Amino acid sequence: MFLEKLDPEARGRFAFLAYDQGLEHGPDDFRGNPESASPRFVLELARDFGYTAVVLQQGVALAARRICPEVARVIKLNGKAGLARGEPYSPLLCPVEYAVSELSARAVGYTLYPGSEHEPLMFREFAQVVRDAGRLGVPVVAWVYPRGKAVANDSAPEVIAYAARIAYELGADIAKVKWPGDREAFRWACRVAAETKVVLSGGPTTESRQEFVDLLTQVMEAGGAGVAVGRNVWQRPLADAQVISKEIVRIALGR
Amino acid sequence: MFLEKLDPEARGRFAFLAYDQGLEHGPDDFRGNPESASPRFVLELARDFGYTAVVLQQGVALAARRICPEVARVIKLNGKAGLARGEPYSPLLCPVEYAVSELSARAVGYTLYPGSEHEPLMFREFAQVVRDAGRLGVPVVAWVYPRGKAVANDSAPEVIAYAARIAYELGADIAKVKWPGDREAFRWACRVAAETKVVLSGGPTTESRQEFVDLLTQVMEAGGAGVAVGRNVWQRPLADAQVISKEIVRIALGR
Amino acid sequence: MFLEKLDPEARGRFAFLAYDQGLEHGPDDFRGNPESASPRFVLELARDFGYTAVVLQQGVALAARRICPEVARVIKLNGKAGLARGEPYSPLLCPVEYAVSELSARAVGYTLYPGSEHEPLMFREFAQVVRDAGRLGVPVVAWVYPRGKAVANDSAPEVIAYAARIAYELGADIAKVKWPGDREAFRWACRVAAETKVVLSGGPTTESRQEFVDLLTQVMEAGGAGVAVGRNVWQRPLADAQVISKEIVRIALGR
Amino acid sequence: MFLEKLDPEARGRFAFLAYDQGLEHGPDDFRGNPESASPRFVLELARDFGYTAVVLQQGVALAARRICPEVARVIKLNGKAGLARGEPYSPLLCPVEYAVSELSARAVGYTLYPGSEHEPLMFREFAQVVRDAGRLGVPVVAWVYPRGKAVANDSAPEVIAYAARIAYELGADIAKVKWPGDREAFRWACRVAAETKVVLSGGPTTESRQEFVDLLTQVMEAGGAGVAVGRNVWQRPLADAQVISKEIVRIALGR
Amino acid sequence: MFLEKLDPEARGRFAFLAYDQGLEHGPDDFRGNPESASPRFVLELARDFGYTAVVLQQGVALAARRICPEVARVIKLNGKAGLARGEPYSPLLCPVEYAVSELSARAVGYTLYPGSEHEPLMFREFAQVVRDAGRLGVPVVAWVYPRGKAVANDSAPEVIAYAARIAYELGADIAKVKWPGDREAFRWACRVAAETKVVLSGGPTTESRQEFVDLLTQVMEAGGAGVAVGRNVWQRPLADAQVISKEIVRIALGR
Repeated sequence: MFLEKLDPEARGRFAFLAYDQGLEHGPDDFRGNPESASPRFVLELARDFGYTAVVLQQGVALAARRICPEVARVIKLNGKAGLARGEPYSPLLCPVEYAVSELSARAVGYTLYPGSEHEPLMFREFAQVVRDAGRLGVPVVAWVYPRGKAVANDSAPEVIAYAARIAYELGADIAKVKWPGDREAFRWACRVAAETKVVLSGGPTTESRQEFVDLLTQVMEAGGAGVAVGRNVWQRPLADAQVISKEIVRIALGR
Repeated sequence: MFLEKLDPEARGRFAFLAYDQGLEHGPDDFRGNPESASPRFVLELARDFGYTAVVLQQGVALAARRICPEVARVIKLNGKAGLARGEPYSPLLCPVEYAVSELSARAVGYTLYPGSEHEPLMFREFAQVVRDAGRLGVPVVAWVYPRGKAVANDSAPEVIAYAARIAYELGADIAKVKWPGDREAFRWACRVAAETKVVLSGGPTTESRQEFVDLLTQVMEAGGAGVAVGRNVWQRPLADAQVISKEIVRIALGR
Repeated sequence: MFLEKLDPEARGRFAFLAYDQGLEHGPDDFRGNPESASPRFVLELARDFGYTAVVLQQGVALAARRICPEVARVIKLNGKAGLARGEPYSPLLCPVEYAVSELSARAVGYTLYPGSEHEPLMFREFAQVVRDAGRLGVPVVAWVYPRGKAVANDSAPEVIAYAARIAYELGADIAKVKWPGDREAFRWACRVAAETKVVLSGGPTTESRQEFVDLLTQVMEAGGAGVAVGRNVWQRPLADAQVISKEIVRIALGR
Repeated sequence: MFLEKLDPEARGRFAFLAYDQGLEHGPDDFRGNPESASPRFVLELARDFGYTAVVLQQGVALAARRICPEVARVIKLNGKAGLARGEPYSPLLCPVEYAVSELSARAVGYTLYPGSEHEPLMFREFAQVVRDAGRLGVPVVAWVYPRGKAVANDSAPEVIAYAARIAYELGADIAKVKWPGDREAFRWACRVAAETKVVLSGGPTTESRQEFVDLLTQVMEAGGAGVAVGRNVWQRPLADAQVISKEIVRIALGR
Repeated sequence: MFLEKLDPEARGRFAFLAYDQGLEHGPDDFRGNPESASPRFVLELARDFGYTAVVLQQGVALAARRICPEVARVIKLNGKAGLARGEPYSPLLCPVEYAVSELSARAVGYTLYPGSEHEPLMFREFAQVVRDAGRLGVPVVAWVYPRGKAVANDSAPEVIAYAARIAYELGADIAKVKWPGDREAFRWACRVAAETKVVLSGGPTTESRQEFVDLLTQVMEAGGAGVAVGRNVWQRPLADAQVISKEIVRIALGR
C-alpha cells in the first residue's frame, strides 16, 4: 500500500540486500569473507550499486546509524538465533514505531513460519505490524517460510504458493519466498499473491555467480518482483561481490 | 442484535460469499478456476447476484478496498493456515475497531473450535469481539467447528447442535455450522440456537450444482437462515458460478 | 459483602435457577423438555415462583434482555464447553463491569476448578472478580468444583469442605458446592466457609421430585443457605417444573 | 526497608501468626480445633498475646475487617490450594495497592518456590511486589520454599541457605524458611541473608508444646529474627494455644 | 552507544566485579570466604582498586544503597536460581526505569540463553531493554550463554562467536562471553561483535591467581575489552582478593 517509500517510480521491482544472517545463522556465514562481519561492507555495496535497501536488525541499525545514511533500511522486526531445534517462533523484537522513528526504517520486515506450532503468535504479531506500518506509512515485507513438523518439504510448489498467499491474506506489501524449483511454480505463487509483490529469497551461495544470475532471471520471467539476496553477494570477496551486485540490480530492477 | 446492518428489512435470511479459504486451506483451492485467485471474482459475483456480503481477511480487504465498494464486507477477524496439525487455535488477527473504521466492515466473523485444547483462548477473544461489535453496532458471525482429539465426529447431530448453542450462549448474531446429515438434526440446531440465526457452512464443492441447491433447500426448510458459501461458487467457471449464484441467492434470500 | 443486592431482608437464603448448562453440557440437556431451550422458560418460572435470580451467560443475557426484566440476573462470567477432556480451565469471558452496566447483573458468578493444572489462572481471575465486584457493589457467587487428575473423588467430604473454604479464602459471598453425601459433611463445609454462604449445586435430575426435595431439606438442616438448581427444574415438563419450583423456593427461602 | 511498620522500636524481632492454611492445606487443618475455622480465634490470640501480626488471604481479610482491627495484618498476596501435584506455582491474587488501601495491610507476604518450572513467574511477580511495597511504604515477607522435581530435599542446609539468600537478592525485608535441622545451618542461612531478617516457618504441630518452644529457642540463638507460626498455636485448644502463645511471643520478641 | 557513563575517557576497557552469584549459583559460593556474603566486601574492593562497576541484583542494590555510593552499579535486570534443570529462562525482574531512577544504575545487565526453548522471551525482553536504556542514556551489558539441549558445547569457538554476534545484532553495548579455549577464537568473537565490546566472563575460581591473570592477558591481546570477574576475586581471602584485583584492573584497564 505504501510501496512508494521503496519504489518511488512505482516500477514494482526490488533488490534487497539482506544482512540479518549474523543473527539467524550465526557468524560462520562471515568466515569466507571476514569483511562482511561489519555492516559497512553491505551498506557500501548498496550505495555503490543501487540496491533498493539493506535489511538490518535493530542492534545493527543502531550501531551503523552513521554509515551510508543515504541507503534505505528495511528494519527486520523479529528474529531468532539458529541454535534451537523444534517448532520455530521468531518473536517481535522491535516495534514498527521505533523502527520508523529511531532507525529511519523505509520499510519493515517480519518472518512468518506458517505450520509451526507457534504460528498463531506470529500471525497475530504480523497482522498488528501491518496495521502499525499502515498508520505510519511504511511498506511491510514478509519473509514466509512454512516450517515445522507439519511441513515435509518447505520448497514444494504448493508450499511456496501457500506462503505467497498467506502474505497477501494478512496484508504484506511484499512476500519473500524460496525458489519452488521451476518457473511455472513461481508464476503460480505470484498469481495467488494477487496485489502482493513476490521476491526471491536468495538462499545459500551458489557454486558460480552465473548460477544465481540465471535463477534470478527465471524469477523475473515468471512474474517475480525481484530478490532479497545476502550470502550470494557478501560471502564473495569484494571484487566478486561488486560484479554480481551489478548483475543482480540490472536484472531485478531492470536498469 | 445489530442485524439491520446486514439485513435492513429484518427478513432474517443471509447469503454470504466466503473468501477466506486462501488462508485457511491454501491456494490449491483456486487451481480449478484461477480467476478466483483475485477477490475481484467474488466481489463482482456478489455485486451482480445480490449476495448479502463477501467474507474477507484483513489483507484482502485492504488490497481490494477499491473493488466494488458497494458490496458489503464481513471481515474475518481470526484465521490460521491449514498446515499445522494438532489442537487448532485461530488467533484474533484484526480488532473489531480496525475492521469497522479502516475496512468498512458491515459485520465481523470469528471461528471457534470448541473442544480444542485452545478453546479458552478463542472463547475469551470471541466474547470480547461480541462486546466490541455491540459497542460499534456491527453484527457478529460465528464460524463454529467443534474439533480436536475430544471430538470424534465433527458433523454428528449433537455436535452441530452444540456448535449452534455455543454461538448463542456467547452472543453471536449468526452461527455458521456444518450440515449435520439430515433436516431434523438441522432443525434442532436452529431451535437450541434460540435468537441466534443459523446458516449453513457450504463446504467442499459438490459433484453437481443441483446437489448443493438441494442441500440449501433442506437447510431453509429446516429453519435455517441461509448459507455462507465459497468453493461451491468460485471453484466453478464464471458461467457456472453465475448460474449457481442466482439459485443460491433465490433460495437463501427468497427472492 | 454485598448480599443485600440479592437478599434485601438479609435472611441469608437463596434459590438460584441455573441456566448455563447449554454451554457447559450442551443442548442435549434440553432434549427432554424442548421448551427449555429458550431462556423464557426459566425466566417465567423465576418470576412466577420467586426464585432469587436466574444464572445466565453473556450471550443469553443479551438476547433475553427484554424477557422478564424484573427477574434478577446472576451473570456467569466464565465458561467452557463440555467437549474437551484434560485439566479444566474455564476462562473469564465477561468482565464484571460489562455484566453490571450492560447486562443488569444483580450478582456475578465464576467457576473455580481447584486442583486443575490451570488453577492459578482461575484463582487469579477470581480474586480480581472479587475486587471488581466489591468496587461495583455486587455479590460474587463461586461455583467450586475441585477437579483434575489430582482429585480422585470430587464429592468426597474433605473435598467439598475444601471447596467451600477456598471460596471463603478468596472472597466469595456465596459458594456453590456439590452434595458431599451426608448432612454432617455438609455442615462441616458450611462451618469452614465461615462468613461465606454455602448453597447446594443441584446436579442431574433425580428420579423423583421428592428425592430432590429431600436432599434440599437436608442441606437446609445442615446449615446450607439454599440451592442453585437447573436441570431438576427445567428438564421437567412445565406442570412438574412448577410444582417442584414451589417446593424448592419454599424450602430454600423458607416462605 | 520499611520494617518500622511492623517493628516501630527497630528491635528486629517478629512473631507472626499465620492463618492462610485453610487455602494452602485445606480445612482438615481445623479438624482438631474447630474454633480455629473462624479468623476470630487467631485475631483474638494475636490481640491478647502481642503477636506482631496475623497473616491473612484477601477473602479472609475482607470478611474479618471488623474483628480486632487493632491487630496488624500481613496480607498474603499469592496462594494456591494443596490439591494439585506437579511443579508448584502460586499466582499473585491480590495487588499490593489493594492490600494496603482496602485491607489495611501493615505488611505483605508472597510465597516463592525456587526450583519449580514456574519459578520465573514467581520471581517476576515478587520483584514487582518489592517495588510496589517500597513505593507504598510497607515491608515484604517472603515465604521461600525451594521445591519441584529439581529439589531432592527441601530442608537440606544448603537449600535453606539458598532460600534465605534468594529473598535477599530479590529484595525481601523478611524471609520465612524451614528449619534446616541444626543451629549452625540456620546461622549460615541468617548470615547469607545479609540485611534480610530470617524467621522460622513453624510447620506441623509438634508432639508437645515444649518441643516447639525448644526449636524456637534454637532459632533465636542462631541469629533468627523470630517465627511465623500457625498450626502449632491454633490447632491446640484455646487454653493450650494461650500458653504456647505466651511462650512464643516471649522467646521471639524477647518480652 | 552510551558507554561514556561507564567509560568517560572512551578507552573502551572495562573491569566489572560481578556479584549476582548468590542468586544464580547460591550461597555455597560464599563458603570459602564468608565475608563475601555481604556486598560490602565487593563494594570496598571496587572502591579501593578502581573496578569500573559492581554488578548487583535489585534486592542487593536496595539493601546496599548507602555502602560506597561512589562505586558505579550495573544493575542486573534478570535472574534465576540455579536449582531448576531444563531449558533455561531468566525473566526480567527489574525494569530499566527503576534501575536508573531508584537504584542509581550506571549501566544495566541482562542474561541471554540463546538456543533455549525460551529464547524468544529473552530476546524480546532484551530488545526492549536496549530501547529503554537508550532512552534513559545508560549502556547495556549482555551476558550471553548459549544453552539448552540444542547446544552441545557451550564454549565451543563457534558458539562463543555466535554469542558475541547476537549481542551486537540485538543492540548490546558490551557482551560478556565465556572463554572459547584460545586466543584466535576470542579474536574472531570480537571481530563478529563489530561495534559491541566483548568482555570475558570470569568463571569459577582458578587454581592459582596467576592462571586467571594469564587468561585475562590473552583476552586483552585478542582484542577483548576487559572482564567481568566475581568468584576469582571474592572467593579469595581479603589479602589475596586485593592482590588479584590490582592485577585485574591493571591488565583490563591498562593502568
